[in-house]
Amino acid sequence: MPNDLLIRNVRPMAGAAFDVLVANGRIAKIAHNMPAAPGVPVVDGAGAIMLPGLVDAHMHLDKTFWGEPWRPHSAGPTVADRIENERTLRRELSLPPARQAERLVRQAVGRGTTHIRTHVDIDTDVKLANFEGVLEVRERVRDLASIQIVAFPQSGVMTRPGTVDLLEAALRGGAELIGGIDPGLIDRDPAGQLDAIFRLAERFGRGVDIHLHEGGDLGALTVRMIAERTRALGMEGRVAISHAFCLGMIDDAERDRLLTTLRELRIAIMTNAPGDRAFPSIRRLREADITVFSGSDGVRDAWTPFGTADMLERAFLLAYRSGFRTDDGLALALDIATRGGAAAIGLEGYGVEVGCAANLVLVPGETLGELVVARPARTCVIRDGRVVTALPAP
Amino acid sequence: MPNDLLIRNVRPMAGAAFDVLVANGRIAKIAHNMPAAPGVPVVDGAGAIMLPGLVDAHMHLDKTFWGEPWRPHSAGPTVADRIENERTLRRELSLPPARQAERLVRQAVGRGTTHIRTHVDIDTDVKLANFEGVLEVRERVRDLASIQIVAFPQSGVMTRPGTVDLLEAALRGGAELIGGIDPGLIDRDPAGQLDAIFRLAERFGRGVDIHLHEGGDLGALTVRMIAERTRALGMEGRVAISHAFCLGMIDDAERDRLLTTLRELRIAIMTNAPGDRAFPSIRRLREADITVFSGSDGVRDAWTPFGTADMLERAFLLAYRSGFRTDDGLALALDIATRGGAAAIGLEGYGVEVGCAANLVLVPGETLGELVVARPARTCVIRDGRVVTALPAP
Repeated sequence: MPNDLLIRNVRPMAGAAFDVLVANGRIAKIAHNMPAAPGVPVVDGAGAIMLPGLVDAHMHLDKTFWGEPWRPHSAGPTVADRIENERTLRRELSLPPARQAERLVRQAVGRGTTHIRTHVDIDTDVKLANFEGVLEVRERVRDLASIQIVAFPQSGVMTRPGTVDLLEAALRGGAELIGGIDPGLIDRDPAGQLDAIFRLAERFGRGVDIHLHEGGDLGALTVRMIAERTRALGMEGRVAISHAFCLGMIDDAERDRLLTTLRELRIAIMTNAPGDRAFPSIRRLREADITVFSGSDGVRDAWTPFGTADMLERAFLLAYRSGFRTDDGLALALDIATRGGAAAIGLEGYGVEVGCAANLVLVPGETLGELVVARPARTCVIRDGRVVTALPAP
Repeated sequence: MPNDLLIRNVRPMAGAAFDVLVANGRIAKIAHNMPAAPGVPVVDGAGAIMLPGLVDAHMHLDKTFWGEPWRPHSAGPTVADRIENERTLRRELSLPPARQAERLVRQAVGRGTTHIRTHVDIDTDVKLANFEGVLEVRERVRDLASIQIVAFPQSGVMTRPGTVDLLEAALRGGAELIGGIDPGLIDRDPAGQLDAIFRLAERFGRGVDIHLHEGGDLGALTVRMIAERTRALGMEGRVAISHAFCLGMIDDAERDRLLTTLRELRIAIMTNAPGDRAFPSIRRLREADITVFSGSDGVRDAWTPFGTADMLERAFLLAYRSGFRTDDGLALALDIATRGGAAAIGLEGYGVEVGCAANLVLVPGETLGELVVARPARTCVIRDGRVVTALPAP
């Protein structure tokens, strides 16, 4: 059986050590001292912690410079500056999106990611080229990681006539979700952009994941407008807002009113714990029973020189930026990089229990908190019961 | 000659590739294709960037849990909670300060640090035990790194009679600097603590490095009181304030007035770019021509589970928290972890030029910015012309 595997001596979620038997790509049994059936590969876990495969649920695979020579960051400070700078650079560089996406997927998988949601630029310049590149890679890396594609109008929707048709073509072509971006700041027409996006979501029966960098009261209004459309179309549980800086900027009472609405409509919130901006309180979101997820966001691209596509490093940044020091807080950060992401992107059979899909990562360490703090090398990454990357045991 | 060395094919500060000849522990010549003299060891730099040894100028070597089993963080959120929790834990754990300090020094050296300033706890419970432990280690690791000791009254000065005598004993015993901590918040007697500290500094002719977590107007007042004493005693260039969160909290005009005073008195500012607190604007401090330095601060101790004693990671956090994305900004963050630290702790002959002490670190990468972003493994660390740690070339 190509998807059978016996993993010896691992500690699921940092608990007691067990052997884990994988049959047909799923966890079949967790017990002590299981015999290896003939022909079934055996991994020596060496007492490492076993986590479910990490979930990087906000990437931009298509436009990374990963694997290219170092490129000094050249954009101005605003979102609009970065969009404009990126369009210029993209023309100059002409990096093949499929090659770049595959490089970054391989980097992410090496760090234990087995599930990705990526936003893919679609605009009237690039048209569907990046989308088609990522589609191609999605097939090519199917045995390494699953990839969900968001058709993402990076340069706006209303200001660039023709964009809606391109987004529609991407949805027909296999994008699972429709994206959006700052309908006020970028499009100067919040209702227009949101109506266009939600109309597509309704017609094609797809989810929505909107970039919202808008701050304070402006962002809060956009959150409300997103919520109204989610409710009107009965899209509960199928909408996400990425970044939502505004939730970390408005006063607590106003924020809590918004969180009640988000909870009711099961709208998920993505934060990557930005370094120098306000961002939503992770603890408060979780207390309000809202799905919180995270991702690498841009990795070494026109937007930022930073990023390693390592979701343990992201969990560290989530914790560091949130002041989480207790084991409880550190585990919460890790939970966002695992179960939070799985919930947000709708993975079924996710986890380290019997019956779950055998997408797993082994990391040496004592506790979940230590993994977030120390971010050790991943000793083994398993996808659908197959070892896709393995380091020598420490 | 035990301190002679030929380093082939390295790029000082990411410039062009050269060979670097070290004689008697100093950089003697930087040229192309130098012949290796008989008996002189040769290092193949493989085109790595050569930096001066990193400067970790704010550590707490004596109280790290480094190398111990994982210990869940148990302190409350305030500085007072943490001090109290630490005193309790210290009694329970009884970790030998010398052993712990040496573990952390060795970790830091492996990451390229060759110069350390450490604050060492002195209070009426622990008395001089931690200080003596670090003194012992300072001798033992002399060939790995230099260590400056700050006699640090972690639990306050005025509230614990007898502390001043202990601090004085530490200064007699070899501490280079006298420390202090939140004279308002901890001692409830700002003038009293500062007078006691500066009196010791004056009597013994030593520098001052004060922990200041006090926020907003309170912290700003303490900065002014520190400045007044610096001026009165003619201690220009010999005083540092660590953390100085208040400089990131008060309004710009008030801050700029304080910076003018700090500049005039050559008072240096240490920031470690905390994750969830305001901190001084690094860019603004540098524009005001103030020496900025940094350090690991607590590494896996009663104060925080975080930390790796890696000053490239610290430079990353300085840049990430400051929104530095350009090469210029990334290089500034690295400069704080190198030349900024060297200036603050008064190193002479620091750098990668002919005549400088051969405390050097080799890191593979294209540019200084890439080192801060990617924090690659250090391939070679050189102390006084001797290789103290080397990885195989990549």
